[in-house]
Amino acid sequence: MAGSPRRAAGRRLPLSVLCLLLQGATAILFAVFVRYNDETDAALWHGGNHSSADNEFYFRYPSFQDVHAMVFVGFGFLMAFLQRYGFSSVGFTFLLAAFALQWSTLIQGFLHSFHGNQIHVGVESMINADFCAGTVLISFGAVLGKTGPVQLLLMALLEVALFGINEFVLLSLLGVKDAGGSMTIHTFGAYFGLVLSRVLYRPQLEKSAHRRGSVYHSDLFAMIGTIFLWIFWPSFNSAPTTLGDGQHRTVLNTYYSLTASTLSTFALSSLVGDNGRLDMVHVQNAVLAGGVVVGTSSEMMLTPFGALAAGFLAGTVSTLGYKFFTPILESKFKVQDTCGIHNLHGMPGILGALLGVLVAGLATHEAYGDGLHSVFPLIAEGQRSATSQAVYQLFGLFVTLTFASVGGGLGGLLLKLPCLDAPPDSQCYEDQIYWEVPGEHEDEAQGPLRQEELDTQA
Amino acid sequence: MAGSPRRAAGRRLPLSVLCLLLQGATAILFAVFVRYNDETDAALWHGGNHSSADNEFYFRYPSFQDVHAMVFVGFGFLMAFLQRYGFSSVGFTFLLAAFALQWSTLIQGFLHSFHGNQIHVGVESMINADFCAGTVLISFGAVLGKTGPVQLLLMALLEVALFGINEFVLLSLLGVKDAGGSMTIHTFGAYFGLVLSRVLYRPQLEKSAHRRGSVYHSDLFAMIGTIFLWIFWPSFNSAPTTLGDGQHRTVLNTYYSLTASTLSTFALSSLVGDNGRLDMVHVQNAVLAGGVVVGTSSEMMLTPFGALAAGFLAGTVSTLGYKFFTPILESKFKVQDTCGIHNLHGMPGILGALLGVLVAGLATHEAYGDGLHSVFPLIAEGQRSATSQAVYQLFGLFVTLTFASVGGGLGGLLLKLPCLDAPPDSQCYEDQIYWEVPGEHEDEAQGPLRQEELDTQA
Amino acid sequence: MAGSPRRAAGRRLPLSVLCLLLQGATAILFAVFVRYNDETDAALWHGGNHSSADNEFYFRYPSFQDVHAMVFVGFGFLMAFLQRYGFSSVGFTFLLAAFALQWSTLIQGFLHSFHGNQIHVGVESMINADFCAGTVLISFGAVLGKTGPVQLLLMALLEVALFGINEFVLLSLLGVKDAGGSMTIHTFGAYFGLVLSRVLYRPQLEKSAHRRGSVYHSDLFAMIGTIFLWIFWPSFNSAPTTLGDGQHRTVLNTYYSLTASTLSTFALSSLVGDNGRLDMVHVQNAVLAGGVVVGTSSEMMLTPFGALAAGFLAGTVSTLGYKFFTPILESKFKVQDTCGIHNLHGMPGILGALLGVLVAGLATHEAYGDGLHSVFPLIAEGQRSATSQAVYQLFGLFVTLTFASVGGGLGGLLLKLPCLDAPPDSQCYEDQIYWEVPGEHEDEAQGPLRQEELDTQA
Repeated sequence: MAGSPRRAAGRRLPLSVLCLLLQGATAILFAVFVRYNDETDAALWHGGNHSSADNEFYFRYPSFQDVHAMVFVGFGFLMAFLQRYGFSSVGFTFLLAAFALQWSTLIQGFLHSFHGNQIHVGVESMINADFCAGTVLISFGAVLGKTGPVQLLLMALLEVALFGINEFVLLSLLGVKDAGGSMTIHTFGAYFGLVLSRVLYRPQLEKSAHRRGSVYHSDLFAMIGTIFLWIFWPSFNSAPTTLGDGQHRTVLNTYYSLTASTLSTFALSSLVGDNGRLDMVHVQNAVLAGGVVVGTSSEMMLTPFGALAAGFLAGTVSTLGYKFFTPILESKFKVQDTCGIHNLHGMPGILGALLGVLVAGLATHEAYGDGLHSVFPLIAEGQRSATSQAVYQLFGLFVTLTFASVGGGLGGLLLKLPCLDAPPDSQCYEDQIYWEVPGEHEDEAQGPLRQEELDTQA
Repeated sequence: MAGSPRRAAGRRLPLSVLCLLLQGATAILFAVFVRYNDETDAALWHGGNHSSADNEFYFRYPSFQDVHAMVFVGFGFLMAFLQRYGFSSVGFTFLLAAFALQWSTLIQGFLHSFHGNQIHVGVESMINADFCAGTVLISFGAVLGKTGPVQLLLMALLEVALFGINEFVLLSLLGVKDAGGSMTIHTFGAYFGLVLSRVLYRPQLEKSAHRRGSVYHSDLFAMIGTIFLWIFWPSFNSAPTTLGDGQHRTVLNTYYSLTASTLSTFALSSLVGDNGRLDMVHVQNAVLAGGVVVGTSSEMMLTPFGALAAGFLAGTVSTLGYKFFTPILESKFKVQDTCGIHNLHGMPGILGALLGVLVAGLATHEAYGDGLHSVFPLIAEGQRSATSQAVYQLFGLFVTLTFASVGGGLGGLLLKLPCLDAPPDSQCYEDQIYWEVPGEHEDEAQGPLRQEELDTQA
Repeated sequence: MAGSPRRAAGRRLPLSVLCLLLQGATAILFAVFVRYNDETDAALWHGGNHSSADNEFYFRYPSFQDVHAMVFVGFGFLMAFLQRYGFSSVGFTFLLAAFALQWSTLIQGFLHSFHGNQIHVGVESMINADFCAGTVLISFGAVLGKTGPVQLLLMALLEVALFGINEFVLLSLLGVKDAGGSMTIHTFGAYFGLVLSRVLYRPQLEKSAHRRGSVYHSDLFAMIGTIFLWIFWPSFNSAPTTLGDGQHRTVLNTYYSLTASTLSTFALSSLVGDNGRLDMVHVQNAVLAGGVVVGTSSEMMLTPFGALAAGFLAGTVSTLGYKFFTPILESKFKVQDTCGIHNLHGMPGILGALLGVLVAGLATHEAYGDGLHSVFPLIAEGQRSATSQAVYQLFGLFVTLTFASVGGGLGGLLLKLPCLDAPPDSQCYEDQIYWEVPGEHEDEAQGPLRQEELDTQA
């Protein structure tokens, strides 16, 4: 007990100092580089000859808000399924995403919109920053309960940078289409997190096994996350697509795909469940695979049937993954994947990339008409054939897997640095390491009033 | 125990098989019939001479998203008030609604937008499908806890078809106005569910009475549902109305009506409550009656005062219904109405239909100006008088009650088929029949860490 | 026990009667004064030469819905952190806000849009009414758990009126800018509530101290409130600003400010926390200070860096306030501030007002271009210099503090009237005084089914 104050100081300082350092650094970079863009700057907007109604804000902000809700409500509560890790799930989601929004504004700004030594920001940069934050949270799902906030912030620092570079290579250099991010978001986030978790493998993790499950109410909190992710996923995939038919079609495809992954999740969960019972883990996660799998192709002419088929397949693969592959991943491949991101983001992400290869390869002038220019500008301009676009799409998947794996490996080494705040094996999945936690129940002796008390005192 | 595997197979297969069959059937029908409409198809949209800003998407999608949130978050959590049925409430809401969205896209498509042997889909069909899913969930509320997922899917299969036909008769054949669905959604869903519950009457249901109540936290989960329904109801009623003043006025009327039903709910709940105490059941449900009661009339020139008066009446009737009529409904009419949908959707729905009769009958060219064409096209074109429109509205209510009652009866007979997955009387309102349920609390022996542990190990 | 029925009647009548009286009064005033405005009235809208797309509805309604969610979901659940006061937190939020929406429609209508003896309503009046309701809920936070619903309705009756007058003085008479309400909403609501709480000081409140804390799950419910407030705050500040770049810029500034207050909250919470642990109270509240602090200035050319700096400062001040100032406020100043509104709304509100003084004082034609007319019309028209505008801004803060303090004092005296429904000192923070509360857990004896039961009975 005597050493307590010193240990406390040791434990407290790193998180405080890191938050302050990171905030200080991004603030300085913001001061030097970040400026309002033409649509948010008073002088620039009014200098143009615009009607207020033309402002990009009115076409993208409702979608942005849905994406924002997905990142903070969706991911935050989805991860709150653990019985003793709700504060960390929701709280660290906040911390990580808030930092990632700032940091990715800078990284994506330098890579995508750096003109005249300035980064120009508006609703599109906000959407892209939220996408990057979502990617970080996907990776967080793999190491949930086994990493402290200092480790997670360092992970975000690295991952945001690599996310930006990978996205730049795909979208800007290779001309790959990936509006909803089957590759850039889901595949990247999943394999980055999985490789990182592999490097951080804990052979003694069973010491915390009793805290790894859910309780009844924590499963219901997690369903808040699931439902908000499910209902707003059409906005996620459509937020950055071309205006008009592009956003409209993307929403429609995603909506149908999600209904199909929901039906296949229930079908498969019941089929493989003990005594025919459904498993909440499947319903919390695999129903969402329909959103992941059409991330690349939902802006294309996938057709409503195509969306249903894709969603059905994704829900099936995801549910079977939870049942059969996650245990193997841990026992054979030594990857401890707390939230099963391999099943929700990894495999459906790869499937989504491959579906994008297929649908891009089938693109014709007939099917897209003059809209081909919006969806596949390089094909419309005659610089590429549809087959060639498909090959580029496939190449984009390999690039993503490479960046994610190498990045996850580096990240794992970084997080293994001594003096960081990893919990001991016996105290994983436990809020009390990082949070003041109130007693689970009110003091029984002084708890609910008895009727007599009410009658007497009121 | 020896028979366990066989029973397990027997229990597991029906749900899996039914999900797969239904998904297979709708997928085939989608492949044959469903196509992007003019606003979602790349070639068709770009073939027209449109600005992106004209796309219907920008006028309806924000409303659609609110409706979507109501269906999945609102209904799902509102029904999670039962202490041991949260997984089923939220989970089966997902399953039923996902199927209903696909199936009603087809049914409504065949009836409303079948041209050239094709169904054309876009944001309006999405809104209509969500409305139909909401209707199924209203009926679900009557049989909550007493039916298995196979039964519920069969109910949805039938109800979606009848919903579509009833809606077609009212809107297309009779020229009835019912934007927010006081008749087509609330009255139909309520009486379909109530008659169905009557057919499934369980005289021995008191065997499960100890599970029929709420616990403290389940009531708070239910309030999540209530609040999302309440805040987004203006979007629900306005989602399908005419653009411009139509949507705007509908929102305003619904907003005021809901504030009044909230005040009358609190007034009445306190008045009839034991010892003056408020009842959470009233607050969870009756506050919403203001949204139901203006479903038909909120697009009309109801006036803000009219909206307040209607909402006040609906909240009053609904609260009194919970207190006095629900027990009679069960004891005298043998209708076991788990969620009290008769109070929230039944009576307020009928009141809403009657209010629509009144307000339609008072329509004048003076009050609506050139806007009469938008709200009452048949009156504006001189094909009907206002009185005649009122009579049609009233007739629409009777048609709806007929379809709902006959349909609910048929549904009840269907759900009584042997070999379906109804729970036994002693195990109603219990998740464990259908779900893997975790222990309620963490293992106490290994639960929260003690301070010494933290000091020692960290 | 013999006196019980009489006491019950005594307890029940006031709330019922007050709800009915208030609803009756507002309904009569609505009937006499409230009319649809040009954008919601069928005849007026169609009489103009408008395209549907021009309707104000499409520019403001998505923002309104976010604000609406903040008021009901955000405030309601944020206050549900108390272990035994969740029903009251969520329920009384409903009651108070529903009444405030009606009442402030009237008050604000009389003051701001009373033409031809009529109040004209539409989406802008809805936004303003929600803002006023939010202000009442801020004050509610100070007296949470220590006041009954009758007292709270009387508080709302007074506060809505004073809010309207203060807002009128600032915006209409003084020409002060305060779109997001750092002064009119946050400062006013906070100091009104704090002074009121001072007048209601309870020296014996420690009798209820055991119920004043949270439990694990109540903290997670509170986080639902926090997250919805956080994600939608950009819509809150931007809802009433000028269209186009104004709304867009306001959103962007608020978004950045919130990320910075989140980082500074974690940094400071860990720094001052016992043993370096984070405190859920800080994360639930101080992360939001970034939204409050840019309430006045976010529509101005604050710059992205300015937003970060402001948010960082606000999160810091707020967290330190919870740690160090709240105990002093209670012990020295005899202000019992249940939710710590002084830290979330009071100090950040004043900071926000001062930031507005600074940014307004720095306004130049160069920085705003032709947009100066939108943000600072009086400066653009040459009626004021920027410095003069800054002085007016500062004067607005003093006016607000005066109205809030005097109003809170009057409110406190009003709520001290005998025969109101204040809970006794020993029963504060306790739902059972006002609500029927179910048992905390299902009957253990008849609780979860055992596996044998399932096997036998199914």
